[in-house]
Amino acid sequence: MADESLFEFLHMEIVAYVYKHQSGDNNDQERGNALSTLEGLGFRVGQGLIERFTKDTPTFKDDLDAVKFLCKDLWINLFRKQIDNLRTNHQGTYVLQDNKFSLLSQFSNSKQYIEEAPKYLVYTCGMVRGALSNLGIDSVVTAEVSVMPACKFQVVIQRA
Amino acid sequence: MADESLFEFLHMEIVAYVYKHQSGDNNDQERGNALSTLEGLGFRVGQGLIERFTKDTPTFKDDLDAVKFLCKDLWINLFRKQIDNLRTNHQGTYVLQDNKFSLLSQFSNSKQYIEEAPKYLVYTCGMVRGALSNLGIDSVVTAEVSVMPACKFQVVIQRA
Repeated sequence: MADESLFEFLHMEIVAYVYKHQSGDNNDQERGNALSTLEGLGFRVGQGLIERFTKDTPTFKDDLDAVKFLCKDLWINLFRKQIDNLRTNHQGTYVLQDNKFSLLSQFSNSKQYIEEAPKYLVYTCGMVRGALSNLGIDSVVTAEVSVMPACKFQVVIQRA
Repeated sequence: MADESLFEFLHMEIVAYVYKHQSGDNNDQERGNALSTLEGLGFRVGQGLIERFTKDTPTFKDDLDAVKFLCKDLWINLFRKQIDNLRTNHQGTYVLQDNKFSLLSQFSNSKQYIEEAPKYLVYTCGMVRGALSNLGIDSVVTAEVSVMPACKFQVVIQRA
């Protein structure tokens, strides 16, 4: 799909650019800064997108309802597929599994790429956190890769 | 359209980010650097996209043919509409006019915004130049706004 490529290419370029400008000599702190910049970019895009997407949607009755909306509607719009599996402990932790995550699909399954994967996931973590934030839900969102291009996003809701 | 928003939001964030990191005190040289960074990002995305888009397309018979492809197929895929008007002097200069350019559609027509417009056009200039470059055509691409959100991209082919 064409606009999917647009997003994929643009995403790759942004990751490369932010890394080039913020982690010159590859030390841990600078790598942390770059990740946090990408997360922040995603956060603001997520905030904007959810506002547009939920314009005609009734309010969500609880966190689960909001997370389900992300897994279906948001994911389809962004990645042309739904989240494949959603699990929750019913205490505010949600695990969203995508068996073929589009931003990883260009990478092979070698160890080197798995180590590089976090930088291709953090923008999306930010986007999920930004979307939830705009629905009034504070969260911490992390991601991990098991076997490329499958990955899991963990959302932990922060109670006030 | 949802993925159109995705691209628009992401584009806005990238422009803001690059400007924040590269034109701290707003002097001309730093502003030039930021524009050139955005142009470079667009260039590489354009190279990648055209490769994907022209996979099943026969080669173009001349520059005009290639530029027409950008005006129709590339533009529809990226911006959901064609270029509204294409002019050429038949000596290597092409003017592509978009009467409602999507990356400007969020701005009003006040003087302040028209002055700001170049930074929202330069990524697309880079993308056009990158696409042509991957088709073996060197060019210089600039853009100007007349009345928001209409704009013109000027492509000047560089002969070896």
